[in-house]
Amino acid sequence: MNSVGIDIGGTKILIVLIAQTGKIKKSVQIPTTGDPPAAVLDRILSQLKSFEKFGSIGIGIAGDVDGINGILRFSPNLPKWKNVRLKKYFEDKTGITAAVDNDANCAAYGSYVLDGKRKYKNFIMITLGTGVGGGIIIDGNLYRGATGTAGEIGHITVNPKGPKCSCGNYGCLETYTGAKGILRLWQSKKTAFHIPPPSYSPKRRISDMQKGGGITPAIIAELARKNNKKAQTVFNEFSEYLAVGVSGIINIFNPDMISFSGGISNGWDLFKKVFFRELKKRSFSTPFSHVKIIKSGNSKNLGAIGAAFLSDKRLQR
Amino acid sequence: MNSVGIDIGGTKILIVLIAQTGKIKKSVQIPTTGDPPAAVLDRILSQLKSFEKFGSIGIGIAGDVDGINGILRFSPNLPKWKNVRLKKYFEDKTGITAAVDNDANCAAYGSYVLDGKRKYKNFIMITLGTGVGGGIIIDGNLYRGATGTAGEIGHITVNPKGPKCSCGNYGCLETYTGAKGILRLWQSKKTAFHIPPPSYSPKRRISDMQKGGGITPAIIAELARKNNKKAQTVFNEFSEYLAVGVSGIINIFNPDMISFSGGISNGWDLFKKVFFRELKKRSFSTPFSHVKIIKSGNSKNLGAIGAAFLSDKRLQR
Repeated sequence: MNSVGIDIGGTKILIVLIAQTGKIKKSVQIPTTGDPPAAVLDRILSQLKSFEKFGSIGIGIAGDVDGINGILRFSPNLPKWKNVRLKKYFEDKTGITAAVDNDANCAAYGSYVLDGKRKYKNFIMITLGTGVGGGIIIDGNLYRGATGTAGEIGHITVNPKGPKCSCGNYGCLETYTGAKGILRLWQSKKTAFHIPPPSYSPKRRISDMQKGGGITPAIIAELARKNNKKAQTVFNEFSEYLAVGVSGIINIFNPDMISFSGGISNGWDLFKKVFFRELKKRSFSTPFSHVKIIKSGNSKNLGAIGAAFLSDKRLQR
Repeated sequence: MNSVGIDIGGTKILIVLIAQTGKIKKSVQIPTTGDPPAAVLDRILSQLKSFEKFGSIGIGIAGDVDGINGILRFSPNLPKWKNVRLKKYFEDKTGITAAVDNDANCAAYGSYVLDGKRKYKNFIMITLGTGVGGGIIIDGNLYRGATGTAGEIGHITVNPKGPKCSCGNYGCLETYTGAKGILRLWQSKKTAFHIPPPSYSPKRRISDMQKGGGITPAIIAELARKNNKKAQTVFNEFSEYLAVGVSGIINIFNPDMISFSGGISNGWDLFKKVFFRELKKRSFSTPFSHVKIIKSGNSKNLGAIGAAFLSDKRLQR
């Protein structure tokens, strides 16, 4: 049976229809807008009317989710969304079973199916984006923890005297390996960077970089690929801290697979060498040799696809 | 039905007979000796002959265990024990189902049953002893990881530039909160400590302490209780690093309960205040508010008891 997966983000909503094989049969994207949840949900529903038959609906959404009752408690990115009974809404309107999970959990489950082919039963996904998040699959099942907050891998402390994190702690993995962390590392380096050749970068961008404004992790990555020393130093430091955090994950979870997603994971070619070197130093040898570590090949729609898979899995129980 | 639990340590072996209620009906301790495994196992077996009827045998042993096949691959504390087929030995000799697990996993499961009464389904045990170990219960089941190495909580990095750990990494939780870690913290403090009153401590012990030899974590704990500033500073630093590690555990696992065991956990009265203060600062608030953190009330025989419970649980499947 087909399943529907819906990834509700702060700015856009992705709706996919997938076959049981995992093949995407249809994909629709609509803006989230600042409307009240009821209006937004009605718009999602009207989209579903054009979909061919499906047997379950999965909803992934950023925020604090009560996965058992299918309620979004609150979401930092969707200020009007408080205690929204998403499961009840979709089940009442469609008569079809619905399941709700945190978007990072959905993405992890999506990667477990698409990247790991359900073969790697103990599976960790780490999302390197604006923030650093994660999801945990234990013995083939999504692990949500006691209150649905499990998997906050970005908030392991990797340096107890490190910079303050948005969560209130100091030196979280996120403060070194999230987008802001990379920019902070860049700004903390005194070394001048040489300006890349004009063929590579438009004037405006370089001027932005020189002022220290307009710089992005993607630009730092491009500079590093052009042998800019400062940018390479940033990625080396990033890699070392990533290894500090991930070695802890390996020693605690002894997982079969770790998959990276998120925009920053596009720097995989830049960081994997130092990352693996440091990881090997810091991890127990048996679990290190066992674990397969990859960059997800399916980053883009993982949240929506994973939500669909998860809703279908719940049906099977 | 009764179960037998056997905890094979480097110096002694504890054998218990427990009722399904968890009540210990019999307890025997014998020395491990340096004999080859066959001789040691025969001595255990001869003890079992005097036990009343039981339905399963659980064996907990320190080292690298293949829990599926019930084989001890190797054990740092038992150099002669290599690839010992413990499950097969006991099943062949007794005709009764046997199960083998790492001793830290057994202790975790014992605490899950005895301290948590099987109510706290996502449960973490942290053993603060010579080393720092751990065990993980997920949804009421022991989590062993892909190669049976899961739960090495002592080997999360809490300070990437910290002291070298026996595992090869730097700044592991164990280097601050294991017995050696505490002694290292003590020796690193320049502050003189005042000699406690004669009523408290024999001359020999104080003299030992002054020389910096003969000091033990237990003595440092006693000194801290007598308001010795240096000893208190040691426990404060210990507490801060413990909080760094445990906050990571809370943010990743979102557990229902964390239980501490091991000799160092007897300093609970000394470290819990600073530990909880730092832990609150560093953890996400919802999982921090939810998790119940205790010192195990059953530290002593947890390994043997947990092994028995685990073997009985396997029978139930």
